[in-house]
Amino acid sequence: MGELDHFLRSQLGSFEPEIRSSVEYCLDVSGKRIRPALVFFSGWRAAEPIAPALVKAAAVVEMVHLATLVHDDIMDGADLRRNRPTVARRYGADVAVLLGDALLAHAVHVAAQFPSAEICRIVSDATRKVCAGEIAQTLRRGDPAITLADYRRIIGLKTAELFRLSCQLGSRLAGFDDGFVEASSAFGQRLGSAYQMYDDLADFFGEEKRIGKTLGTDLSGGKVTLPTLVLLNKLPANERDELLEEIRGRRAPPLERRRALMSAHGVFAEVAGSVRAELEAGVALLAPWAHLEPTPLLVQLLGLLQDQVNNLSGGEIA
Amino acid sequence: MGELDHFLRSQLGSFEPEIRSSVEYCLDVSGKRIRPALVFFSGWRAAEPIAPALVKAAAVVEMVHLATLVHDDIMDGADLRRNRPTVARRYGADVAVLLGDALLAHAVHVAAQFPSAEICRIVSDATRKVCAGEIAQTLRRGDPAITLADYRRIIGLKTAELFRLSCQLGSRLAGFDDGFVEASSAFGQRLGSAYQMYDDLADFFGEEKRIGKTLGTDLSGGKVTLPTLVLLNKLPANERDELLEEIRGRRAPPLERRRALMSAHGVFAEVAGSVRAELEAGVALLAPWAHLEPTPLLVQLLGLLQDQVNNLSGGEIA
Repeated sequence: MGELDHFLRSQLGSFEPEIRSSVEYCLDVSGKRIRPALVFFSGWRAAEPIAPALVKAAAVVEMVHLATLVHDDIMDGADLRRNRPTVARRYGADVAVLLGDALLAHAVHVAAQFPSAEICRIVSDATRKVCAGEIAQTLRRGDPAITLADYRRIIGLKTAELFRLSCQLGSRLAGFDDGFVEASSAFGQRLGSAYQMYDDLADFFGEEKRIGKTLGTDLSGGKVTLPTLVLLNKLPANERDELLEEIRGRRAPPLERRRALMSAHGVFAEVAGSVRAELEAGVALLAPWAHLEPTPLLVQLLGLLQDQVNNLSGGEIA
Repeated sequence: MGELDHFLRSQLGSFEPEIRSSVEYCLDVSGKRIRPALVFFSGWRAAEPIAPALVKAAAVVEMVHLATLVHDDIMDGADLRRNRPTVARRYGADVAVLLGDALLAHAVHVAAQFPSAEICRIVSDATRKVCAGEIAQTLRRGDPAITLADYRRIIGLKTAELFRLSCQLGSRLAGFDDGFVEASSAFGQRLGSAYQMYDDLADFFGEEKRIGKTLGTDLSGGKVTLPTLVLLNKLPANERDELLEEIRGRRAPPLERRRALMSAHGVFAEVAGSVRAELEAGVALLAPWAHLEPTPLLVQLLGLLQDQVNNLSGGEIA
């Protein structure tokens, strides 16, 4: 990760002087760097130092990710991201739109430094899918007709796609054979879906300090995510209709009230179970490749996500 | 241009079904298509049909341009673009941010279909410059210290860069030699600057119906453009200070009042003169290449812009 930070920092010089300090603010976020970790782990060769190609690919996915965060935070109207003011709060929404664009453009620029245009092709394809997922979600805010299948499709695009891309790039650039490239990509897809489910759960049940961002933004923004879908399923008919009306009318209750209702119906446990199922499916995908060096690392990463879920508290009696 | 429309339309299928109709709204804007024209003209070989590579490159620059328009209109809070509601008005600002991103990603995806990653590299580099120019302009809204040099730098990035790229792509892909690729790129840069100066003049002196977009957005948004810079230069000291105060305090007067003041000081004529000077510099750049097929076409395009300037009315006695 030190090499990644060094590489990202070295990119600042490629931006026009007028925007360097604001780009630095976007890059300097000491985030979890899950996607770069996926690139490095999927391309792991124990006997060799980390290849420059992997560092470059990790920087590409991280920059795409940071660009989407910058744009997300405008839309969610969030104040905090990783315990700092969001870019939109710091520089205004207008500049945030453009900074996201500049980051996206630069991510592609770095992707275009690979000799084959293939890398650019898969990076831009994944980026478009991320946007499509976000758009689909935004268009369906306050739509009570959203189904579990819609939700899965949306998170598959908006989150899992970049996880998938990270694994694809790592395993491909490290020269693993097509079978493993496919399996690790599918693993990334599962991990990404699990991660988004966890994130959606944390928006209701997290602690603001630990998560580092404003909670309850999905609720207040009218985003219908997995906890709400599960709640809808569990409520008796009359309360269900009430909740649907609430969603349609975009009249979100205070976070605490919604959380209490969810706790009363065992929503936390069920969503946590869905995350676990996704993670187990991920492990199964890698089983035939247990002999390869990346596999134990990827499985370990998945364990970290499981720990994070375990750290959330549903206030439910298990 | 028919081939370009056909190609752009054929790209809709590459977008996720959830966003196709909104992407179509972005693409279907029957704009002036100046940048595609630059690609075609710079790569013109009279004896040959338009090469598919040129159509593809024209689509790339047009999509990048449309993406920036979508994002611009969010920031300017404009209602109209080419006589229709802007994408932000039609779908909301949130979706507009993401649609711009998706268009940008797809532009790169098409650029990545060229065998060499070089095309991706120059496209993403130009895109980042466009963003940097926009950011620089946004950061300096309401800044009375902005100079003519700052203004030239900003329009050089935000507008002229994409004109330059169009000429570079056209002449390169058509196989012209490096000297002409360079000359036509520099020509594109001049034409782009001239175009932006014209556009900034039209924001004060245009007719809404003819221009197809809301007038006076620069003024109300606190953007200090060439007409204002020229006015500052022409005003006597006390009125100058008043105007500086007005800019600093972001207290824009009604468009008519500002226009009247500008007319009284011959601002229109001077800005129109600057546009003309830029266009003449463009012609001079192409003079050594008069024997090549693209040259008369490029010069003709430049004449069209001159006509548009002539169509504006400054209300001044020439």
